[in-house]
Amino acid sequence: SLDERPSASRSPNQKRSTRSAPSATLDCSAMSATLAPVNRTFEPKDPEFSARVQASFARQRVMRALGVTLVRVDPGRVELELAFDPELTQQHGFMHAGVIATALDSACGYAAFSLMPADAGVLTVEYKINFLAPATADRFTLIGSVVKAGRTLTVCQGEALGVRGAERLRIATMT
Amino acid sequence: SLDERPSASRSPNQKRSTRSAPSATLDCSAMSATLAPVNRTFEPKDPEFSARVQASFARQRVMRALGVTLVRVDPGRVELELAFDPELTQQHGFMHAGVIATALDSACGYAAFSLMPADAGVLTVEYKINFLAPATADRFTLIGSVVKAGRTLTVCQGEALGVRGAERLRIATMT
Amino acid sequence: SLDERPSASRSPNQKRSTRSAPSATLDCSAMSATLAPVNRTFEPKDPEFSARVQASFARQRVMRALGVTLVRVDPGRVELELAFDPELTQQHGFMHAGVIATALDSACGYAAFSLMPADAGVLTVEYKINFLAPATADRFTLIGSVVKAGRTLTVCQGEALGVRGAERLRIATMT
Amino acid sequence: SLDERPSASRSPNQKRSTRSAPSATLDCSAMSATLAPVNRTFEPKDPEFSARVQASFARQRVMRALGVTLVRVDPGRVELELAFDPELTQQHGFMHAGVIATALDSACGYAAFSLMPADAGVLTVEYKINFLAPATADRFTLIGSVVKAGRTLTVCQGEALGVRGAERLRIATMT
Repeated sequence: SLDERPSASRSPNQKRSTRSAPSATLDCSAMSATLAPVNRTFEPKDPEFSARVQASFARQRVMRALGVTLVRVDPGRVELELAFDPELTQQHGFMHAGVIATALDSACGYAAFSLMPADAGVLTVEYKINFLAPATADRFTLIGSVVKAGRTLTVCQGEALGVRGAERLRIATMT
Repeated sequence: SLDERPSASRSPNQKRSTRSAPSATLDCSAMSATLAPVNRTFEPKDPEFSARVQASFARQRVMRALGVTLVRVDPGRVELELAFDPELTQQHGFMHAGVIATALDSACGYAAFSLMPADAGVLTVEYKINFLAPATADRFTLIGSVVKAGRTLTVCQGEALGVRGAERLRIATMT
Repeated sequence: SLDERPSASRSPNQKRSTRSAPSATLDCSAMSATLAPVNRTFEPKDPEFSARVQASFARQRVMRALGVTLVRVDPGRVELELAFDPELTQQHGFMHAGVIATALDSACGYAAFSLMPADAGVLTVEYKINFLAPATADRFTLIGSVVKAGRTLTVCQGEALGVRGAERLRIATMT
Repeated sequence: SLDERPSASRSPNQKRSTRSAPSATLDCSAMSATLAPVNRTFEPKDPEFSARVQASFARQRVMRALGVTLVRVDPGRVELELAFDPELTQQHGFMHAGVIATALDSACGYAAFSLMPADAGVLTVEYKINFLAPATADRFTLIGSVVKAGRTLTVCQGEALGVRGAERLRIATMT
């Protein structure tokens, strides 16, 4: 779940950014549609939700440190990507589960953020993650989707896919 | 929960390492004792559990990338430390929750690993984390403790403490 | 997650039961398909999986006590139903969240059980549940689906729907 | 986590009830102290918190249906008890995990409720439960403790103990 809070730290000029949709380099829509909540049609409260997500994502320095990029922003749905990096591995040479979780948590956080009013902030209050397969792929797609946008709490669902050539394997789910 | 599996990747000379207990740079025993499972006395199956944990930890390259160090190893309990790093922050300037989770997951994984036979490996299958306070401290102590060591599954409990001078604040719990 | 274990308690004549598919009184397939795992096609190891699920369900006395019935069994997917019962309410007159969780846990457990060999048993080792809306409907549909059937651990996903006339509302998700 | 909300359903005369502390029939204080949060000293906002918890508990009809009784109320900590009941068993003759979870969820909910102002209500928004041992004891003690009482969200921790004669075994933990 994610908690909404007034954010004092947003600078006004972030609102001025008008370019919005990042180009989608990977289309998982067919696949992720199978995981879609019953009601996927969310109305964003802020028409500039995409620019707002991008500006905030750019301030998450840890995303740069881990090599996570923003692939696509839709109302209530955000897709990130992460390449395999030997510097981020655990003792068996897989990407550390926590790195996958960090990126997936951000995907979920920004999915929630995309539906919030322009002056809101978002903080993760809790999540659970199940790891289904070791993180050994060439790159990873992280998809966060809003299940329920409440007044103070937003419930999201995330899935991490390992991508190797044309093959995609689900490696983790988050709630 | 963490899953035990035979590990083919351990090289034989890791067993020969005889130095074991890392010096404790921070004594949280009084505090973490309050969180101790009912029965904390675990018998390690491998007398060289501490050397084994240290050797495996040294192979987790992501720990170096994030600046996480191994502070203390006891049977069924492992303590890590992490300094605040602006490169690992999220959009409000706090350490990203996922980084805290990554280190706490490793603390829990190695707590489980410390009780396993010499030829076993460990993989996280799932965890849940609750964030209690923003990660704004100077450094962080991550404590993983085994709650139940089962045949194939080990259940652990983790807590992340933010340390600022003499003050310590619990910022996250993991199960 | 659910743990597989050899079950000594199954009596031999349970295997002889040949009637299998319970009649579906409610078709949620369109709806629940939206939540389906990437790969939903599971091959049951035991051709009499449905009879086995029904026999075991009949031994769950708590299901009778709570008024939960078995609606449909497919390989890796089980659907239960529960009517609103004022005896099972909490302080605001909603069905107690734990009752919904109990039935949903059983739906997930039997989804896992449907894919197991004939001599296996199943035990829940952990779950997380998110409550999305108060449980105030006339009746509830509980759907458990297998996400990953591992060697010793099966990961499932559950959803609880409140049904009032033609309206269906998702009230909880489980992982 | 539990969500606070204004409760319209409380009748005014519940406030007049002046008897408060239920007599403790089982003292787990030594044991549960080992699980206590770092800072256990919570100041109740409502001096009649105990009467309020008792009155609300009495309205949870499901507690009567399952045979759960209120044993002890302290600020931020509630203890319930439940006897083994063959009507509430699963297919192996253990108490169904969901029944334990239902009672433990109530223990956590009332632990949160005990710290809330007089006009507040409480709703569970999510929990995770780990089952450590099958629920086969004669009776069960369910302890809910507040870890963090936030403005809108309260984080609790629960533990379920199986009691058989003088022996007590932890069978589940909740967060």
